[in-house]
Order: sequence, then structure tokens, then C-alpha cells
Amino acid sequence: MADALRVALAGLGTVGAGVVRVLDANRDLIARRAGRPIEVVAVSARDRHKDRGIDLNRFDWVDDTGALAHADADVVVELIGGSDGPALALARATLAAGKGFVTANKAMLAHHGYELAQAAEAAGAPLKFEAAVAGGIPVIKGLREGAAANAIARVYGVLNGTCNFILSTMEAEGRDFAEVLAEAQALGFAEADPSFDIDGVDAAHKLSILAAIAFGSRPAFDAVEAHGIRGVLAADIAEAAALGYRVRLLGVAEAGASGLFQRVHPHLVPVSHPLAHVTGSTNAVVAEGNFVGRLLFQGAGAGEGPTASAVVADLIDIARREFGPPFAMPAASLETPEPADGGSRRGRAYVRFSVVDKVGVLAEIAAAMRDAGVSIESLIQRGAAVDGSVLVAIVTHEGPERSVAQALERLRGSQSLTGEPLWMHILG
Amino acid sequence: MADALRVALAGLGTVGAGVVRVLDANRDLIARRAGRPIEVVAVSARDRHKDRGIDLNRFDWVDDTGALAHADADVVVELIGGSDGPALALARATLAAGKGFVTANKAMLAHHGYELAQAAEAAGAPLKFEAAVAGGIPVIKGLREGAAANAIARVYGVLNGTCNFILSTMEAEGRDFAEVLAEAQALGFAEADPSFDIDGVDAAHKLSILAAIAFGSRPAFDAVEAHGIRGVLAADIAEAAALGYRVRLLGVAEAGASGLFQRVHPHLVPVSHPLAHVTGSTNAVVAEGNFVGRLLFQGAGAGEGPTASAVVADLIDIARREFGPPFAMPAASLETPEPADGGSRRGRAYVRFSVVDKVGVLAEIAAAMRDAGVSIESLIQRGAAVDGSVLVAIVTHEGPERSVAQALERLRGSQSLTGEPLWMHILG
Repeated sequence: MADALRVALAGLGTVGAGVVRVLDANRDLIARRAGRPIEVVAVSARDRHKDRGIDLNRFDWVDDTGALAHADADVVVELIGGSDGPALALARATLAAGKGFVTANKAMLAHHGYELAQAAEAAGAPLKFEAAVAGGIPVIKGLREGAAANAIARVYGVLNGTCNFILSTMEAEGRDFAEVLAEAQALGFAEADPSFDIDGVDAAHKLSILAAIAFGSRPAFDAVEAHGIRGVLAADIAEAAALGYRVRLLGVAEAGASGLFQRVHPHLVPVSHPLAHVTGSTNAVVAEGNFVGRLLFQGAGAGEGPTASAVVADLIDIARREFGPPFAMPAASLETPEPADGGSRRGRAYVRFSVVDKVGVLAEIAAAMRDAGVSIESLIQRGAAVDGSVLVAIVTHEGPERSVAQALERLRGSQSLTGEPLWMHILG
Repeated sequence: MADALRVALAGLGTVGAGVVRVLDANRDLIARRAGRPIEVVAVSARDRHKDRGIDLNRFDWVDDTGALAHADADVVVELIGGSDGPALALARATLAAGKGFVTANKAMLAHHGYELAQAAEAAGAPLKFEAAVAGGIPVIKGLREGAAANAIARVYGVLNGTCNFILSTMEAEGRDFAEVLAEAQALGFAEADPSFDIDGVDAAHKLSILAAIAFGSRPAFDAVEAHGIRGVLAADIAEAAALGYRVRLLGVAEAGASGLFQRVHPHLVPVSHPLAHVTGSTNAVVAEGNFVGRLLFQGAGAGEGPTASAVVADLIDIARREFGPPFAMPAASLETPEPADGGSRRGRAYVRFSVVDKVGVLAEIAAAMRDAGVSIESLIQRGAAVDGSVLVAIVTHEGPERSVAQALERLRGSQSLTGEPLWMHILG
């Protein structure tokens, strides 16, 4: 058997320790599949003495993480996180040294993916990041290779397990957002500062990476419009269910005549669509190709085992020497499409208002919709909520998003509204 | 840009013509992704003059398909079909000539996959077959590479679109098998001789290929126990629905202490399981890994566009020089596990009897179950069917399959039965 692939590991948190466990538990199998052993030779982490349930004595301990780039290894695995700082410095140094780099760091790739792809290409070194998107699901590979024969019209999916856990728990138990979030935090399913997850930033990082591969463009995080799920009420989920939909936070990227459209937003998903059945912290990604049609990839979007599985899959590809340009085509050929104007997209929408319970409110909303040219398919008003306000939920006919935005603009500041309206797109 | 990858194409049926159309339609995109153009240079098919909607004049026409192995090409794509004969001869000659070979031929791989993998390895040539299993879904890649870090406990799925179309149409419309099959044949969704599909042979071919990759074994079609869907009644589907299940023909491969278990059989799938929502001719495959957990791959299992998409994905991998051992590890290291004894598997079962409407029949069935040690969870008897017989459906508690087989053996030849009992496994 050929020489071992020697790995230097930066970061021994959940995923880092998981990588060691995968390589230990499946050692012989991985060597058979990879054509050679894969061996961790050096590690670096903040605390040398923390008990991680793995024996670290067999590895070189490197205090300065940045020095891992010069360890006697073929590949550095970065599991520190953070879009800049030590992770980025390590990536640059490793690739500059001509060594392979494997990372689960979606934020870094969303912001610096293009630069790193150029560096990898210049060095002829692999840069791989299956674990950065949708945890254990091989969706980077699925897009980069499996769907490579297709022009992709749209890629979208459930990209954040925390949000999906919260939404599907709200759905199953009829409880409101804040309560379920607090519980998720207590259980460790949500961070103490949950904003990266619940405001859609994490999903936006992942979406920008998927979009780059699907559309042959440079990752452009700043072009992703990100909305989260803070505004979703249990009542919205109940209305959606009554209409035949489930509420999911979706990242959607779409190539159009006016440019590349990228958005993270809560959506109504028809119950007949596979994403409606994605519950808990599961992730799922759909790619629509011009020949293959609709492909779905589904699995665990986070967690020690699944994420470590994806990291080790990258290492096996490298051990097999089966790798190429990180974003599916040479960095020089990645385009920088204009961000598409969302306003000209056509679709159906769910818009829910919290209003005061008085004469004329419905007329005011209906007039705003009419004046903006929004055609209403159905309108449901339900009796007073806990705080005395009334919920008015509207489903529109298909039309330009601009019109809905204009209607909401007309209603801005209205004394009839008791809170921000919630706008959700209906997945078509 | 590097030299083109030159392709010789054997077979210009639906999929063959589709490959030409994909390469034409997505020409520039594919060249960017593959790092070089992919060009068909020679073709061979039965009828030179048939109108396929593509211009063949730009290709060398080769009358003798076998001669394609010696065409001025880097890769031969075989879309003729048939487990032996010209397809196998072409595979052997192509690999012996040191050229790459891409095929959608599941029957040939199920029977001769090991030999061909050895030949490819000896020649250092790629042998790829993404299109052979589950059409456009990149599940060969998903198992070979995406899940490569995992010991796979079980791989299973909906592998035959014709059967799934028939079952889901029966389910949606409450109609019986023969009627829906006839309609599917009229619509072109089922072959004039449908036995390969409806008796589970096609799914068994695919399962043996998936199992080889998942478990590091030589493809062993003869070790697959194949049953089809001829015996499934609309009434069975209705009973299953009442119990919270959908009926699906599943291929299931499982590694156990006693060997490798491979079976194609109609199953009851809980409605909470993603495979319950796979309808029409869609295919879906689940792999359960010891770190990644449950991965699901879903998409179009057949048809011109999806299958051609998978063929061209293989060509792109070859153009990128990202390929290795066809069955995920060197042929020499593929094992030949014992076929596992299904009888010792434990599970729950659905068993339905068609019986004459007379005193004592229920007692006879119940006694046979008791004597074989089968514990009954529920039993439903419904009034007389069209032919006057009565249906008795039993759901068992978990127990060894052997016991159910023994109970059925005890009842064999009983005058109380008006037809073959139907045994379906409940997916656990």
C-alpha cells in the first residue's frame, strides 16, 4: 500500500475530535477505500489538557496553530472557524506551502473562497470543504461532480438545522418562536447568541458557496439577501398548514437574465414537496438541472459524526488524488454576475399583518394591495390574539415581488398595524 | 484549454441520443467544468438512417460496434444494454485497449462487474457507471466518495421507477395492479415484456452494484433474493395506508454477522419515512453510515435527460482525471461475503391471505401462526372481494423471518386459501 496521507489538524472541538474518532473507528476500511492509510500526525487546539475522550499523545502537539502549515504533513484540516483571523492565516500559509487544505469553515469560504481557490490552483494543491455546507450531506460533491453535466436553473434548500428544528418544533407543538428558541438553547441545539442561525447568516454563508459551484461564479456573500425566522408566529405556521404548506427557512439561488439571485428567507413549502418533510435539524438541498431535473440530497446538517464524515470524505478524495478546482471550474473562469433584482421575480406570497381590532383596517390593507397591483388569492382574518391584536393573513396570486414590497411600503407607519408584517414567499 | 476528451458512443437509443443532446446544449459549460471540451467523435448503432433529431454526419459512423474499442477516442460510452453479447465484448476490448469505459448497463455490471473492474485496474483505465443505478441521481458517487468515511450498515431504496409508478398510481387511484400495468404499458412507462421491472430483476441488478460499493464486496447478483409486485392488490395498499404505511418495492442490502444480505421485496414504509413520499417514477436511495447517519439521494430514476446527465457526469470526471477504482477500492481487495440467511433477520411483517368465506378459516390461520411462533400485532378481516374471497391481513410483532416462512409453509396447499398469500416486510 502507498504511503499514508499525513494530516495536521487545527481545532479539537466537537468536529475535530470527531475526525480523530472516524479515522480511528474506520481505520482499515478507510485505508482500503483511500488506497492508503490516512493518519493524523499533528494537532493544534486551545487547550492541551481538556479531556476529549481521545488519546492525543500519539500526535505532535503544536502550540501555534499557524505553524501547522509547516508541519510534516500533506494536508491541513482547519476546524477553528471564523471568517478571518487564525483560520484564514492558516489557509493562506498552508496553500502557499503547496499543501492540501480541508475546512468546514463556511464563513471563511463565503468571504474569501475566491482568493483561496486561486491560491490552491496556483499551488496545484487541493482545497476541499464538503463539511462547510449541510454537514454530512455530500452536496458540494453532488453539485460539483454529480450534476456537472447540467446548467443549473436553481439551487435551494434547508441549510440551517437550528432554524429547521425551531420551525418544525413550533409546527408540531403549536408553540411560539421565543419559547422554542429558549428550549433549543437549553438543550444545546441553539447557541447562546443565536443570531447567526436565526437571522439567516449561517444559511447565507452556505448558500453563497452552493451558488458559486452551481453557477460558476465567485462566492459573493454580500450579494445574499438574508432574512431569518424571528418574525414567524405559531399562528403563521397554523395558517400555512391550513393552506397546505409548511414553513421552512430556505436559501434560494437562481440564475436569471438579470443576474444571480441569492436569498435566505422563510418560505411556504407545499406539503407535496420533499422539503416539507424535512424536520428537526435535518438539512436538504435541491438542485434543478436542465437535463437531470430535480435532485434532492438530504441528511444530517450538523453534529460531530456527520460533519467529521464529510471532512474525512474530503481526505479520502485527496488520498485518492481525485480532486480538482474547488468551485468546479478554474478560478480564472469563475464569473462575477450582477446580483439580480429580486423585485422583478414573480411568485406567490404569504403576507401576515398584526392589526388593531377596529373598523376599516381590512379596507386599508386591501386598498394598499390594490394600489400596488397585488392580486389577492385568499385572505383570512382570525379573532384576537393574546395581545388583543388581530391577524390578517393574505395569500397573493402570482405577481412581481416589487408589488408586494410597494404595498408594504404604503402601509408602513400605519396606526392600524401593531407590529411588523411578515412576508413569506411561496415555493413554486 | 487542454485537448478534448474524445468519446466513441455505442448505442443511439433514447439515452445515447440524450448524451449527444447534453453535450451539444451545455457544450461550453461542460468544457469549463471539465477543464477541456468533451467531443463525440464516433458512433455506432443499429440503424444509421433513423431520425433521432440529432445530426450524425459530424461523427464517424462505425458499423461494427465492437470496432469502437479501436476508434480514435479516449473513452467508449456503451448504451447498448444486455448483460453479455456485444456490450460485454465491447467493454472487454475497450479496457484491454487501455481506454476508458462508461456504461449505463446495470445487468452487465451485476454479472461481470468484478471482471471488468479487474480489467480496468490492470489497464489503469477508468470504468464508470453512474447511470447504471437510479438514473440521474449521483448515488454511485455518493456512496463511493461522499459516504466513504463510513462503515455502511444498510443501503436501500426505491430503485425501479416502473414499479414505483405502478404502486403510487394504485395508491392514488385505488386501482388494481393489472389494470395500472396495462395503462403504464400503453403510456410507454412499462415495457411490453415488463417482467424485468415488475419481478424485481432490474432493481436487483442495481442493488448488487450499490451493495458492492457500500460493503467492499464483488457484485453478486445471484445472491440477491428478488421478488416483485405482481401480488400486490389495491386492497393491500389501502390496508397499509390505514395502518400508516405506503407500499414500495425496496432493494435492501445489509451487512450482518452472518454475511451480506441482499433482497428486493415489496415493503411497508412508514409515512414518516422519506421513501414514503417518493412517488411516480422517482427513485431514491438511503445509506446508513456509522458516522454520517442516514443520507438520502433522490431524483429521476430513468429517462433520456437524467440518464444522459449521469453518463456525461462520468465523462466530466474522466476529463478532470478524477477517477479511481470503480467499486471504491482496488478489485483485489473486494471481498466475497457469504450471502446472509434471511431467516434469522428480525422484523415486522404484513401477511395477507385471500381465503374462502367459511367457518374456521381464521382459526386455521391463527393456529399456523401460533405453531410457527409468530406473534400477531393486529389482524384485519374485510368482507368479500369481487371474486367472493375474503382478505385477511395480519401485521406481526417483531420476530425472525423464519417463523413467518414456517407459518406460510404450514398453510401451503390449504383448501381455505384462494390464492398465494402476500408477504411484505415492514421497513424498520
